[in-house]
Amino acid sequence: MLRLTRDAAQVGVWDLETDVAVVGLGCAGAAATLDARRSGAEVLAIERASGGGGTSANSGGVIYLGGGTPLQAECGFEDSPEEMFKYLMAACGPRPDESKIRVYAEDSVEHYHWFVEHGVPFKPVFYPHYSGEPPTDDGLVFSGSENAHPFHQMARPAPRGHVPKVPGQAGGLLMKTLLDAVERSGATVWTDARCEALVTDEAGAVVGLVVRVDGESRNVRARGGVILCAGGFVNNKDMLQRHAPLLMQCKYRVGTTFDDGSGIRLGMAAGGETVNMSHGSISLPIVPPKSLQKGILVNGQGMRFINEDAYYGRLGEHVVARQDGCAYLVLDAATFERPDVERDIAGVGESVEELESELGLPEGSLQATVELYNRHAERGEDPLFHKSPEFVVPLSNPPYGALDCTTASSLYAVFTLGGLRTSADGEVLTPAGEAVAGLYAAGRTTSGLAAPGYSSGLSIGDGTFFGRRAGRHAAARVVDHSAKGVPG
Amino acid sequence: MLRLTRDAAQVGVWDLETDVAVVGLGCAGAAATLDARRSGAEVLAIERASGGGGTSANSGGVIYLGGGTPLQAECGFEDSPEEMFKYLMAACGPRPDESKIRVYAEDSVEHYHWFVEHGVPFKPVFYPHYSGEPPTDDGLVFSGSENAHPFHQMARPAPRGHVPKVPGQAGGLLMKTLLDAVERSGATVWTDARCEALVTDEAGAVVGLVVRVDGESRNVRARGGVILCAGGFVNNKDMLQRHAPLLMQCKYRVGTTFDDGSGIRLGMAAGGETVNMSHGSISLPIVPPKSLQKGILVNGQGMRFINEDAYYGRLGEHVVARQDGCAYLVLDAATFERPDVERDIAGVGESVEELESELGLPEGSLQATVELYNRHAERGEDPLFHKSPEFVVPLSNPPYGALDCTTASSLYAVFTLGGLRTSADGEVLTPAGEAVAGLYAAGRTTSGLAAPGYSSGLSIGDGTFFGRRAGRHAAARVVDHSAKGVPG
Repeated sequence: MLRLTRDAAQVGVWDLETDVAVVGLGCAGAAATLDARRSGAEVLAIERASGGGGTSANSGGVIYLGGGTPLQAECGFEDSPEEMFKYLMAACGPRPDESKIRVYAEDSVEHYHWFVEHGVPFKPVFYPHYSGEPPTDDGLVFSGSENAHPFHQMARPAPRGHVPKVPGQAGGLLMKTLLDAVERSGATVWTDARCEALVTDEAGAVVGLVVRVDGESRNVRARGGVILCAGGFVNNKDMLQRHAPLLMQCKYRVGTTFDDGSGIRLGMAAGGETVNMSHGSISLPIVPPKSLQKGILVNGQGMRFINEDAYYGRLGEHVVARQDGCAYLVLDAATFERPDVERDIAGVGESVEELESELGLPEGSLQATVELYNRHAERGEDPLFHKSPEFVVPLSNPPYGALDCTTASSLYAVFTLGGLRTSADGEVLTPAGEAVAGLYAAGRTTSGLAAPGYSSGLSIGDGTFFGRRAGRHAAARVVDHSAKGVPG
Repeated sequence: MLRLTRDAAQVGVWDLETDVAVVGLGCAGAAATLDARRSGAEVLAIERASGGGGTSANSGGVIYLGGGTPLQAECGFEDSPEEMFKYLMAACGPRPDESKIRVYAEDSVEHYHWFVEHGVPFKPVFYPHYSGEPPTDDGLVFSGSENAHPFHQMARPAPRGHVPKVPGQAGGLLMKTLLDAVERSGATVWTDARCEALVTDEAGAVVGLVVRVDGESRNVRARGGVILCAGGFVNNKDMLQRHAPLLMQCKYRVGTTFDDGSGIRLGMAAGGETVNMSHGSISLPIVPPKSLQKGILVNGQGMRFINEDAYYGRLGEHVVARQDGCAYLVLDAATFERPDVERDIAGVGESVEELESELGLPEGSLQATVELYNRHAERGEDPLFHKSPEFVVPLSNPPYGALDCTTASSLYAVFTLGGLRTSADGEVLTPAGEAVAGLYAAGRTTSGLAAPGYSSGLSIGDGTFFGRRAGRHAAARVVDHSAKGVPG
């Protein structure tokens, strides 16, 4: 097993010197590169694949932005940094990182402008149909549970999913645009290049890295620091098993082959702490069509457990972490529509009793659930889970059916949200809370803002936002040192 | 902030040399000390308090042992290592550490004899009333969910909670006995002594430690290794917030002031990986009396979520991790008894409807739950959660009442189960899966066998079991070296 750190004293000759080295060219690495360059630093960015993009390029391209962006205003929505902060504090797990959420909300409008300046186009049209990734080229969408219980009572809802203007999956356009900007920026980019080890000095500071490229190991000095943006670990089976075993029941893993935790392991070897390692973004897309939210999700005891209009990441998280991976979406003849995401039909019946029996649910369980739900639904109410009235209708038109939403046979999309703990400037922190000098990280190599409690767009959002801050902070270390006459 | 590792090259003079150093004298440290001594090693054991015992001494003293111990046989129970293995694999979280569970089950009878040899007395009487810690001096008790659904179908149930012979909390007697044995063993013991740092050589191996004692820092060489047995982190608020935020809602924290994660942090500083950091043992003791299991636990939507006869650690885990900390134990006039653990009465009513209203539950919700439960209970059945028939009776005798089992106002006892990842020999492992040479850990400084999925007795069980193995392995490093003529 290769050691993931090397002593600077043993390096001998540097094959290359630069100000800032960026490991990985997904959205976080591109953002780190661009802002380090803008701060006047020389940058070497390396990427294991033959071109940049990473998992970001294969994503929906949604960016979680708000606080009153021009796009929100053009679409007629009011928002403020405070409301965005309140939503994120409520949604992002039991004890989210307040300092990072604070700066993320406060500087979000500026971050929107950054995307626009770099050429990312947004169409000022709101996509109204459901929370998630729009199939159109519309620019704004609800991408979390902002207007669903209990969050709509905790913060004024506003759509914050900002989507680059292209029909369907927008991650490709987003990354092409950012990578074009990287090319224009004058950064040096090495592809098919892998970080073998971080180089540390005797005080433990990171002063460079060893890059494997063209069959050789090259020692690169990074005067300002190294920024790890190498993705998560959803495609590392050993790490998943040790750290996030619950996620293994999800069939569809969102990531490239390089989401193998290499960045996290490099950071740990240099003294970084990991947090939230068990958590992931777990999507159970029961929409589209939006009307399927009129069905009720029941567990293996035939009982409801959530408001079905919550963001599909919240649905997935609850099924996996709380319901042992078992859920059915129960509909009647009036509410059934063919789901866009293909799903097996787990059962049908001329009566709820028959459906209950076909699903193998305990006798009377689903009947009691539907009866209680219908009784309230007659009045347009859902006092148990507070689903929005527009989706509350009695299920009373036979035949009845249930879509299979079990993890065993249904699509659940997952990627990891745990990783290195970082400061609001992207500094990798030790267990004692100190920054590892010269070491930064961003994107899914770090713990996400939401872990658990994901909303679409937060991964590209926090990756680019804290990637930029890391790039600027690392660059400033060189500039400051030069200003003081310390050898840079 | 002090660095938690020091370079051996900078140590200069060793103030003391020993074969094995043990940090912390709870059950794991005592076991490590005893077996290292038995293997012929010199041992220095240090303890931050003024005397040994740690959290173990304040515990119930239950030890999870089985596979066919003499005590099990005397009480008329059949067990085998394979059945014990099957139960633990089923109970201990989604992907337990099979290699450790395997050796733990296979060598459990030997481990029982070890306690007896060191003077721990067990009364060969089975305590039949409920799973947990017996109030009597009886020696054997069900201490997990062995005879509850779904585990009784996955492994042949046997009681495995072995309890030292003393009425009530047996941890004090257990630790007094083990500490007496430590004293007889000839180990050197320093109390009021704290490990400031581990000393590592240039290859990263741990070769000693710095001990703060009598106002001085003393450099201690440990030729065979250092064994960290310094407890968990339930009393470190920062670590809880970062790693196990859900546990913070539990009011009663089981631990001494020294359960502040110091051992975990020392191990991480030397390159060790942590796992399962978010998990804890979370007890919601609805028993005694046992008959309270005839009630039904409902959540904030008035719905059941578990078989109430599951081990109270399983109940607590489910309420905290899956039910947002909200649960009520609903009883009728026939099933109500005063609970031994004081609990508020959350509501009473002449009818279920009235109780439902008083609890603020959605209209009809508790009524539907009780109606369905009673319908099955008439036949002695619980097809939803498979509670044992002896606890299944219709709740139909007014008045009705509910005991408050919310984390907000009820007793939940918690300690952490996450910590350093170790091999079956107690070696601290790096993220790459390699052992940190010379570094061992046991007890709650390490990840428990069960994380989540706790059964009573597993903490003293795995602490002593892997503590002993660590002691032997560290001692063997010295013995082997001497045999080869390498300076020991």
